[in-house]
Amino acid sequence: MTISVAVAGASGYAGGELLRLLAAHPEFEVRTVTGHSSAGRPLAESQPHLRSLAHLTLRETTPEVLDGHEAVFFALPHGASGALSEQLGDVRLAVDCGADHRLTDPADWAAFYGGEHHEAWSYGVPELIVADEGGLSRQRERLVGATRIAAPGCNASTVALSLAPGIAAGVIEARDLVSVLAVGPSGAGKAAKTHLLGAELMGTANPYAVGGTHRHIPEIQQALRGAGARETPTISFTPVLVPMSRGILATSTARLAPGVGAAEVRAAWEDAYAGEPFVQLLPEGVFPRTADTLGANTCLMGLAVDEAAGRAVVVAALDNLAKGTAGAAIQSANIALGLPETTGLPVDGVAP
Amino acid sequence: MTISVAVAGASGYAGGELLRLLAAHPEFEVRTVTGHSSAGRPLAESQPHLRSLAHLTLRETTPEVLDGHEAVFFALPHGASGALSEQLGDVRLAVDCGADHRLTDPADWAAFYGGEHHEAWSYGVPELIVADEGGLSRQRERLVGATRIAAPGCNASTVALSLAPGIAAGVIEARDLVSVLAVGPSGAGKAAKTHLLGAELMGTANPYAVGGTHRHIPEIQQALRGAGARETPTISFTPVLVPMSRGILATSTARLAPGVGAAEVRAAWEDAYAGEPFVQLLPEGVFPRTADTLGANTCLMGLAVDEAAGRAVVVAALDNLAKGTAGAAIQSANIALGLPETTGLPVDGVAP
Amino acid sequence: MTISVAVAGASGYAGGELLRLLAAHPEFEVRTVTGHSSAGRPLAESQPHLRSLAHLTLRETTPEVLDGHEAVFFALPHGASGALSEQLGDVRLAVDCGADHRLTDPADWAAFYGGEHHEAWSYGVPELIVADEGGLSRQRERLVGATRIAAPGCNASTVALSLAPGIAAGVIEARDLVSVLAVGPSGAGKAAKTHLLGAELMGTANPYAVGGTHRHIPEIQQALRGAGARETPTISFTPVLVPMSRGILATSTARLAPGVGAAEVRAAWEDAYAGEPFVQLLPEGVFPRTADTLGANTCLMGLAVDEAAGRAVVVAALDNLAKGTAGAAIQSANIALGLPETTGLPVDGVAP
Amino acid sequence: MTISVAVAGASGYAGGELLRLLAAHPEFEVRTVTGHSSAGRPLAESQPHLRSLAHLTLRETTPEVLDGHEAVFFALPHGASGALSEQLGDVRLAVDCGADHRLTDPADWAAFYGGEHHEAWSYGVPELIVADEGGLSRQRERLVGATRIAAPGCNASTVALSLAPGIAAGVIEARDLVSVLAVGPSGAGKAAKTHLLGAELMGTANPYAVGGTHRHIPEIQQALRGAGARETPTISFTPVLVPMSRGILATSTARLAPGVGAAEVRAAWEDAYAGEPFVQLLPEGVFPRTADTLGANTCLMGLAVDEAAGRAVVVAALDNLAKGTAGAAIQSANIALGLPETTGLPVDGVAP
Repeated sequence: MTISVAVAGASGYAGGELLRLLAAHPEFEVRTVTGHSSAGRPLAESQPHLRSLAHLTLRETTPEVLDGHEAVFFALPHGASGALSEQLGDVRLAVDCGADHRLTDPADWAAFYGGEHHEAWSYGVPELIVADEGGLSRQRERLVGATRIAAPGCNASTVALSLAPGIAAGVIEARDLVSVLAVGPSGAGKAAKTHLLGAELMGTANPYAVGGTHRHIPEIQQALRGAGARETPTISFTPVLVPMSRGILATSTARLAPGVGAAEVRAAWEDAYAGEPFVQLLPEGVFPRTADTLGANTCLMGLAVDEAAGRAVVVAALDNLAKGTAGAAIQSANIALGLPETTGLPVDGVAP
Repeated sequence: MTISVAVAGASGYAGGELLRLLAAHPEFEVRTVTGHSSAGRPLAESQPHLRSLAHLTLRETTPEVLDGHEAVFFALPHGASGALSEQLGDVRLAVDCGADHRLTDPADWAAFYGGEHHEAWSYGVPELIVADEGGLSRQRERLVGATRIAAPGCNASTVALSLAPGIAAGVIEARDLVSVLAVGPSGAGKAAKTHLLGAELMGTANPYAVGGTHRHIPEIQQALRGAGARETPTISFTPVLVPMSRGILATSTARLAPGVGAAEVRAAWEDAYAGEPFVQLLPEGVFPRTADTLGANTCLMGLAVDEAAGRAVVVAALDNLAKGTAGAAIQSANIALGLPETTGLPVDGVAP
Repeated sequence: MTISVAVAGASGYAGGELLRLLAAHPEFEVRTVTGHSSAGRPLAESQPHLRSLAHLTLRETTPEVLDGHEAVFFALPHGASGALSEQLGDVRLAVDCGADHRLTDPADWAAFYGGEHHEAWSYGVPELIVADEGGLSRQRERLVGATRIAAPGCNASTVALSLAPGIAAGVIEARDLVSVLAVGPSGAGKAAKTHLLGAELMGTANPYAVGGTHRHIPEIQQALRGAGARETPTISFTPVLVPMSRGILATSTARLAPGVGAAEVRAAWEDAYAGEPFVQLLPEGVFPRTADTLGANTCLMGLAVDEAAGRAVVVAALDNLAKGTAGAAIQSANIALGLPETTGLPVDGVAP
Repeated sequence: MTISVAVAGASGYAGGELLRLLAAHPEFEVRTVTGHSSAGRPLAESQPHLRSLAHLTLRETTPEVLDGHEAVFFALPHGASGALSEQLGDVRLAVDCGADHRLTDPADWAAFYGGEHHEAWSYGVPELIVADEGGLSRQRERLVGATRIAAPGCNASTVALSLAPGIAAGVIEARDLVSVLAVGPSGAGKAAKTHLLGAELMGTANPYAVGGTHRHIPEIQQALRGAGARETPTISFTPVLVPMSRGILATSTARLAPGVGAAEVRAAWEDAYAGEPFVQLLPEGVFPRTADTLGANTCLMGLAVDEAAGRAVVVAALDNLAKGTAGAAIQSANIALGLPETTGLPVDGVAP
């Protein structure tokens, strides 16, 4: 099988990572890449690391250019894919790495993004626990045969994967969650901004979106409600830019549910991720580094129960561009298209 | 006035920073530097950046070598200064940058350090709010005329300064605090360890002491009890090594006390640090970067009230070696010796 | 075909990279991994990024443990593989990533390494131009059917690949070469040393082995003699540690041969690397970044002719652990074993 | 004495460093700061690390605003200070940190910058050796009483200081010099450009201006001619951006003059910099790191004679913003105004 693919927004960071993973995927063939200011230029100018695709030239991002591919991946700025996707013609599968199709509640969209709200697509975090009348399942079941998929926000999926097991099992409270993330600047994109200059970010830690303003907050809440939170999840969420080009290390803490012991807490996470190929709980006392996930579609997680503080502490590491964005998109596409879920996706990180 | 000074443990990172600041101080004169494996060697071999002190040679760390100086600064591994300080003879002022004299409660010492407990010395965080029967004051009052001072743990003082104002004012709860810190590896010292190699730490974020085991936790609790916490403070505390040689960025969150509004919260911190030369609350919506404090005796703090999450969020930045250790030591020594508190201490960071 | 493999010295950086690439290789199966102080421990403790091999346990590095594998890769400290390899029994192919079998001249070994000299094995840089009585060829021809291969020094192969085309073509002089390299510290290995600590290397550039003492110098000279240098090549070689965990960026300059023009110079490199899958000359005016080669078996090269200075300037980038060591080893093993040369080796780097 | 100062271009990196050093200088008082897009905004927004100057507001950069100060420092983009300085009225001393007044030869300006050439001002590298009919002297003699000073290019002064001693003494040749520099991105300024983003520069080494196009080349040649080069100096010059916000590590090599021995070479540099407070030759076998000069007005230099390669190798480290720009400007201003040359300038770096 060879599935023809177009990547829209191929000159940016998410687009580049999609291409890197798609180029190594045995079932996909990248036929078309598009850009905006880079349209008409060789891909090698904006993605010099992609030697295997150096023959490609960027085209304009239009419905006509994208139509006719079996799969289209959007790696566009927020707000751009919504309208564009409505104009798509014959495309079997569309996967959006932007935010436009993540949020189910228009009020959330209005409060955190603004502009027109577009329908939510199938959420591309296969390992996420989902609780409904039928009991607990995984999000992957909702991705089988999907034709429209919303890849997750990288910070949001890291935190949702960190906390959903405990919420689904009832061993932690969904209220008063606290997450602080060390993140690399590639998540902020490739547009030139003074505060993202190398000289501004090297040798320093820079917080941003402090105090509950980050756009991934409603996405986390939505995922945790889906995981069975009995009350509206509340979360204090603080990202901190640190000097690494890629990576997210999310430290998330939650109050222990009354009467719950450390063994029960650990069991909840073990049960949730046993057998998962891309999300792995590390042994007791071991915690992950982002480097161990670099370039891989892997989320590593460590868990501690701090009885003195009354909180479970989950530390999760992933590569924001890989498992956090492009890897999740391709993993979800594999499921949607009936391919083995792990096809073409690396699990070993590039370290040191 | 010229005050003769000896620095014990001058070949390490804390020792080097003490020397850098002392060399620029108009009232101190560094007469003696000591080391362990480096004894007998030129200081310039272990501290090649200290050109102004390149004429010094390291001596053995013995009471005889240290005696006779008006001020002695200890920058020794934990456990080393306790016994040594008891053997000191005629020394007007001793300042310990290690942990040996920080904790008042022998049970805390036994639980987090082990070995013999030594008496607590005056705690070297002048700006720390202290609540007692006489009302609120600052720790600096307890440093006037002190002869023995315990410089703080760098992580501990960052968190204590972050949270004490709200606890003293009663606007946040002292229970269920959560702090996550991005820290540079210089705080872990200069001893060669595989997990601290450059190749292990560059391009990655590495958590450690997850789950309530970090030795600075009882020090934080002690400081917050001193600031008037009505119940025992509990804190979930997670440090994360990030790729910068120096710096601490502590994100600390606390539940808002019932019925408290954002203005009251902000007023607590404004009142606490108005007029402080070295601890500054930034304007609303502004948060600090560690780079802005590099090499300076400055702690910068930003505050947000996240009403949706029900928490105050304090982000504090300082240089772990400067304001976090050596700067605090010298600031406290200035007070103890009757010098103007700001003498010889830089407030401007080296950025970018 | 499945070729059974053992990796000796699997807990270090070169060993880890061998494993990462071998795990993704369709024809090799890693059966055995050995370590020294880590023998008996799970591989996951020393290589937490290698999730696909997390089931392996490190064994002792002995001939008995290694014998019986079709291929053995050595990633041992210099001096260790020489004696060990002589004790090997039935092993079809041995590849040494250490220096022991690189140098043909015992005098070079004595001058730069010392201790017993071992015979030189087939040099594992397939793209290297070799000049002999039969004219110009590539080193790959000497690797076909080889049973013992010496993977190159990472710095040496970068410089040799940079300069050999011009020397073979006679457009540059082999005398008075100058190379300065920006290198990441993973090339210095995983042993704990103070000068390799993260705090020592972050935010700074550190030269070492200045003035002609680096051990890769005779290896470069040997390769350039092999490429047809008419007189003994002389090279000023200075490596500089910079704050990136991996990567080599070598800037090499050579005097233009008398009467040679820019077009002839460029043609020499174009001819040398046209059609090479892993060594690529970039277009005129374009120069490589190490990030573009991260994790890949790719060497990217840019060339300028500085007529005012009378020198050709070659800037080459590669990943010291991948194309510089483990990738070169596997590429050479592919050739030796009759596999397609590119089998299992990534060409796209992980960037940004 | 209090000398009133204005800094034009105070929102950028060079402007910020001028302010940091001026704020700690006992004789200067910063009265006025100007910006372009930041005019009207508090200085603290663009320079949050300068707590001691947080009361200042940026004004427009006009002759009217600058006139009336005893000293004016320009930290403007190249091309901006030339015209502006001609409109200045009553200003005792103007120091230009831009390139506009560095080059004496209009042809050099035309070839490397373009646009109108302005007269060269006194070159602000006091330690630079100058050879003229009177024999050897230092550039500082030409700065005494100067009213217009051109601070050097940071790369240019590093290389010129590295090589001038050997050229003046005749122990190295001025032809066929080779310099490769590891540099931090703060030297490229604060304007937002994609290729200077943190994600582009972290974890990688990036060459630029390869092949003889860097604008500092004619400045180096001019300085070396001034040091007594008998023939036109030729230099292959390659800068490489590495992941540190500040710093230059220049590795410069030069052919040994015929018949010259290692001792003579070393003596040339020792003689040149003996007694210099800010340029120091390290002991034989010791080479500098950029970190050792961070924030200081110090240039550290190591020297090796590589007899096999026939070259002297000079490795020089300095902080591009401090000794490379702002520190040189203030040091030169001290001399021009009759202050002790070392007034207010730190010699100790901030390390680790």
